[in-house]
Amino acid sequence: MPKPAVRFRVDLGRDEAIGPGKIALLEQIERGGSLSQAARELGMSYRRAWQLLDSLNSCFRERVAVTAKGGRRGGGATVTAFGHQLIRTYRDFDAEVQARAAHHFRAIIGQAHRRTRARKALPVVRLTDR
Amino acid sequence: MPKPAVRFRVDLGRDEAIGPGKIALLEQIERGGSLSQAARELGMSYRRAWQLLDSLNSCFRERVAVTAKGGRRGGGATVTAFGHQLIRTYRDFDAEVQARAAHHFRAIIGQAHRRTRARKALPVVRLTDR
Repeated sequence: MPKPAVRFRVDLGRDEAIGPGKIALLEQIERGGSLSQAARELGMSYRRAWQLLDSLNSCFRERVAVTAKGGRRGGGATVTAFGHQLIRTYRDFDAEVQARAAHHFRAIIGQAHRRTRARKALPVVRLTDR
Repeated sequence: MPKPAVRFRVDLGRDEAIGPGKIALLEQIERGGSLSQAARELGMSYRRAWQLLDSLNSCFRERVAVTAKGGRRGGGATVTAFGHQLIRTYRDFDAEVQARAAHHFRAIIGQAHRRTRARKALPVVRLTDR
C-alpha cells in the first residue's frame, strides 16, 4: 500500500516559516561549505539562496550559518551549532510526521485509486486548473 | 511562548493531495448542506469549490460528498460517511501534528525573535522577494 507523504512548513511567527527549501539549503551548506555551491546543487539562484539564508539568520537570536566574503575561501559558508540543531529538529519532526500520517491515513489511503485517471494527464485540464 | 503552527498537505498519490482548503470545504458543506453556500463562506468561486470537490470525489473509490442538481433543493450537497471519516482523520492528524510541533520546536522557538524587524515591513523588500 502506498504511503502518504506530508509536505509541511512550520510557522514560527507571522513572517517566518521553516520549510523544506530552507532546511535543504542548510543541509547542502553543511555538506559543501559553500552557499553558491549549495544554490547550484539545489537548482536555485545565488540571490534566492542568499535571501533564504538571510531570512533564517534574521529570524533567530543566533545565526544558523555564517558566510565569509572575500579572502582565500571567498564565498565559504559554515552551519553553526544552532543551525545544526535546527536541521536535526526539523528532520526529527519530519520523520515523526510521516510515520504518524501513515498511521492516521491508512484507511483513507486504502480507498484511494491507485492510478491517475487518464484525463488528468491531458495538458488542457492542467492549464484550466492553474 | 508562541506556539509553532504547521501548515501541511497530505499527498495520497502523484496527483492528489488533501490540504486545509479541501477539508474546510467539506466541513462547510457538512454545516450548510450546500456547495454554493460553502464556496461563498470560504470566499472562493463556485467553480473553484466544484473543482476541489470533484478532485476529492475522483480520488477515492467512494465519494466524499454528493450534490443534487435541480429539483426543489437544487444545489444541495451532503457529505457522505466516508467524507466525514476523511474530515475526522485529517483533523485528528492535524491536532497531533500541532502538538508534536510545539514539543519538537520548543527550543527553536525560544531562539526566535518576538517582533518582525521593521525593515521587513517595507513594501520594497516584499516586492523584490516575490
